[in-house]
Amino acid sequence: MREEILQTRRRNIRRQLRKRNIDGLILTKSVDVTYVTAFAGHDSWALLTKNAVYLITDSRYTEQAHNECLQTTIVERRGFISEATGRLVRRLKSLRSVALSRSISLAAYETLKKSVAIPLKKVDGLLTTARSIKDKVEIAAIKTAANTAAVALENTKPFFKPGIAEIELAGILDLEIRRLGSKNGFETIVAFGPNASRPHHQPSRRKLHRTDTILIDFGATCKGYTSDITRCFAVGKPTAAYRHAYEVVTRAQAASIATARAGAELVAVDAAAREVIRDSGLPVHGHGGGHGIGLEIHEIPFLKEDAQGTLQAGQIITIEPGVYIPGKLGVRLEDDILITDKGCQILTRRCPHAELPI
Amino acid sequence: MREEILQTRRRNIRRQLRKRNIDGLILTKSVDVTYVTAFAGHDSWALLTKNAVYLITDSRYTEQAHNECLQTTIVERRGFISEATGRLVRRLKSLRSVALSRSISLAAYETLKKSVAIPLKKVDGLLTTARSIKDKVEIAAIKTAANTAAVALENTKPFFKPGIAEIELAGILDLEIRRLGSKNGFETIVAFGPNASRPHHQPSRRKLHRTDTILIDFGATCKGYTSDITRCFAVGKPTAAYRHAYEVVTRAQAASIATARAGAELVAVDAAAREVIRDSGLPVHGHGGGHGIGLEIHEIPFLKEDAQGTLQAGQIITIEPGVYIPGKLGVRLEDDILITDKGCQILTRRCPHAELPI
Repeated sequence: MREEILQTRRRNIRRQLRKRNIDGLILTKSVDVTYVTAFAGHDSWALLTKNAVYLITDSRYTEQAHNECLQTTIVERRGFISEATGRLVRRLKSLRSVALSRSISLAAYETLKKSVAIPLKKVDGLLTTARSIKDKVEIAAIKTAANTAAVALENTKPFFKPGIAEIELAGILDLEIRRLGSKNGFETIVAFGPNASRPHHQPSRRKLHRTDTILIDFGATCKGYTSDITRCFAVGKPTAAYRHAYEVVTRAQAASIATARAGAELVAVDAAAREVIRDSGLPVHGHGGGHGIGLEIHEIPFLKEDAQGTLQAGQIITIEPGVYIPGKLGVRLEDDILITDKGCQILTRRCPHAELPI
Repeated sequence: MREEILQTRRRNIRRQLRKRNIDGLILTKSVDVTYVTAFAGHDSWALLTKNAVYLITDSRYTEQAHNECLQTTIVERRGFISEATGRLVRRLKSLRSVALSRSISLAAYETLKKSVAIPLKKVDGLLTTARSIKDKVEIAAIKTAANTAAVALENTKPFFKPGIAEIELAGILDLEIRRLGSKNGFETIVAFGPNASRPHHQPSRRKLHRTDTILIDFGATCKGYTSDITRCFAVGKPTAAYRHAYEVVTRAQAASIATARAGAELVAVDAAAREVIRDSGLPVHGHGGGHGIGLEIHEIPFLKEDAQGTLQAGQIITIEPGVYIPGKLGVRLEDDILITDKGCQILTRRCPHAELPI
């Protein structure tokens, strides 16, 4: 089954290459390499041609590559990866043109350009577009990653006790994720009280007060795919302002989710949440209203005020409106949803929203 | 004191720019940006000119930038960072040439090149070279990072109990690092028994047996600087083969450390450890014998069989020989040492090597 999925992915990419009259595609981002080969290691590139896929790796990863790669020719390199890839391209006489994404470093690009004797074309966004529509293997992985995160958070709740520091609570949550055989999808954010007004707060030594609030933004992984969840809690009786913000964000998120379906304009889905917050008189979040997740924690599509395009069936996105009042409070709720033709499916149902006060 | 250090760093870089007849330097790697501005956030670039330093950041980081940056003009961008930096360069009429490292992405380079009206030169290695010689603020940070790692490992030892999984032990160690107010410098490696024969082993669900061995490769951070330590332990009575490998690696590491001083050839320091292992009849590690540490976990200088150049006073490097026998065992010992004119100083003394069996 995995092999069929991989063939489908490759077929889709090859179709795009044919349209552009390109024979081969060099993949230099490790998530792109994983997507077409199933290899999960690092420092490796892939070359996809009309009828083959090559992984260019080194001796540290050869064993892992043979274990993980499906229908892939493994090329063990010595020396620079750009030179080794250039040599491989030269060896494949049938290639008349080869392309890559401009996410490559200038240094690697220059080496490669010198090394290959055929035109080196630039194609942006080909893999990010392909990767944005999830296949069933990917959907299953993200569902598992979401469920793992939910269980880990549940196991962490007994530690929501006055005196614990943000960093320690983050560490405990990360440990619970590990105990479930997973690992963090990204650096866990734990913010107590007013610290939550900074969306990118770094967990500090700040301790939880007897009456306080907690914001946690975190994710677990499964097979390289990450979930991304934000939940807010209150310890002791929250202020009226906090309750109000929480209630508004809950409604804002629901409004956004209600509009999410294949064909919906990204701006419209983003605007639905903003409108609810704006109407309440509270300040609207300065960040985007959500983003795709997958092998990367931030993928297309991005919900933004100036976003272009529409949602597509098979995309998995977060919806994460927030209210931030510097020095006072921060509330954000974030769920992961699968876009379908008729609407969407919430993948983070097992991670319940808090009933305030907890 | 911090400001003086920052001025010294900038002076050194400007001296290199003058030699190359370059007026300004665009820094696009976040560690380089941190090095010249003290800003610890992400998604930001810096521009260093003859008499000023600019940080190009966005609204998410403006507050943090004002708190952290020293003697830096903060430019809040909208839109792409490459375009915003191009605009800034155009605005600074006195600039006649500007340079950058080829670690920049091709996409950002092309945008920048279109945007600036003056020559855009390429200089490789300027910042990595400057950053390889540590100043006293950096040495103090790495010492603290090493001590934190030592305490965290000590606190983790009570969990070296049969039945614990590699991933769980890794999680506990990471939590202990957090409890000390720090965080991981990189992904902790925990490998039990034969799993340790893979230098890049990913912690798995493999459980610790009653008679078993443990390899842990980890680091804590302080102010962005990371330590990097590997220790091996035995639970129950280790095999004669394991004891032998451990003893050989101990001698190999000591041999390498004994040669480490300013002016020593990198190949000689690397070779000293390899020779001890080769003479013992055991297989020699396939990876390098050590590497610089700092704001990045792997920096110049690299100890390798084909390394060129010599050690310099003020560099901080790891020395990490190993013996790996697939399916059987893996032993690696890694310490962090500060290179001085007369020899070196071991910064990881507080993390004792195990007396086998523990």
